[in-house]
Amino acid sequence: MATPDPFLAVANPTWVGKLIQLNVAFPNDEERMRLALRLALENVRRQTGGPFGAAVFESETGRLVAVGVNRVLRANCSVLHAEVVAIMLAEARLHSYSLRNPKHELVVSCEPCAMCSGAVLWSGVRRLVFGALREDAERLGFDEGPVFEQTYEYLQRRGLEIVRGVCRAEALEPLRLYKDSGGAIYNP
Amino acid sequence: MATPDPFLAVANPTWVGKLIQLNVAFPNDEERMRLALRLALENVRRQTGGPFGAAVFESETGRLVAVGVNRVLRANCSVLHAEVVAIMLAEARLHSYSLRNPKHELVVSCEPCAMCSGAVLWSGVRRLVFGALREDAERLGFDEGPVFEQTYEYLQRRGLEIVRGVCRAEALEPLRLYKDSGGAIYNP
Repeated sequence: MATPDPFLAVANPTWVGKLIQLNVAFPNDEERMRLALRLALENVRRQTGGPFGAAVFESETGRLVAVGVNRVLRANCSVLHAEVVAIMLAEARLHSYSLRNPKHELVVSCEPCAMCSGAVLWSGVRRLVFGALREDAERLGFDEGPVFEQTYEYLQRRGLEIVRGVCRAEALEPLRLYKDSGGAIYNP
Repeated sequence: MATPDPFLAVANPTWVGKLIQLNVAFPNDEERMRLALRLALENVRRQTGGPFGAAVFESETGRLVAVGVNRVLRANCSVLHAEVVAIMLAEARLHSYSLRNPKHELVVSCEPCAMCSGAVLWSGVRRLVFGALREDAERLGFDEGPVFEQTYEYLQRRGLEIVRGVCRAEALEPLRLYKDSGGAIYNP
């Protein structure tokens, strides 16, 4: 008998829907970042994935469109970093493969890896805000992949605004908690 | 009332399951590539997405584990390039976030973009084979994003074997057909 072509459902863990409220407005980078950090922390505490959280906002209004947490271990899917989940779910909600118009932005607890930097570009978000830096994640043993200074120059030439290190001290918390709780470093 | 957290089902178009047979063995690069090219061509002919196809094989046996076609336009999802779909579905089938053991490989109709190069790395596949080159896709108006010579050096240092330009002349066909049929260039 033929093996049916497989499929995969992309979704956040169920606690996410109870914790957050979509459509609420977050007025500034710090409040937007604190949401991403709360998601990252809860993902560690509830043992549903890696110490990363992300959220997509409508830039002008600050309206929360979608969030994502790292799902690699729980969903058995190496692609489902927090940024990818947030982008996929934001686009699913808006029924659009582009978050360009109206202007949207992605706020992430930690600097995106090579895959996610590309995903950010293709999503059309026009602003990327992150908390912890590459070296913070690498100190934990996570690999960021082939991201170079040139990568950021490329993204900025395409009109992406990049804001680094927002609430960086707080952004170290999920990483530390993950390390202290013996979380798996799941690079293959 | 609270807006429920959204979800997204990742799957190939239904024609894929009728066209391909999983678990069949493909003995060499050329036969593996021709499957990827057939998927790319059919995706254009049936107007279910961009001119790209990909497949994951078990390296040793040549057993077909999963395939993917570009789903960006139809699934309204900028992340669902052929490579990402193939990797997600292969991992879903194997219930594992790593395709490293046993050794797997990804065969793609065209050189992967920045996002997909990162996805290839995190998937753990140990061999990447592609047909058309970056410049072939760019001539059509597709953007490959921030992929540099350094990117490939990085991937190779991590143990990824890279084979370029397999069946390149045939690999131009899906790109040409897409262009001639007025297919949308969907970079945001």
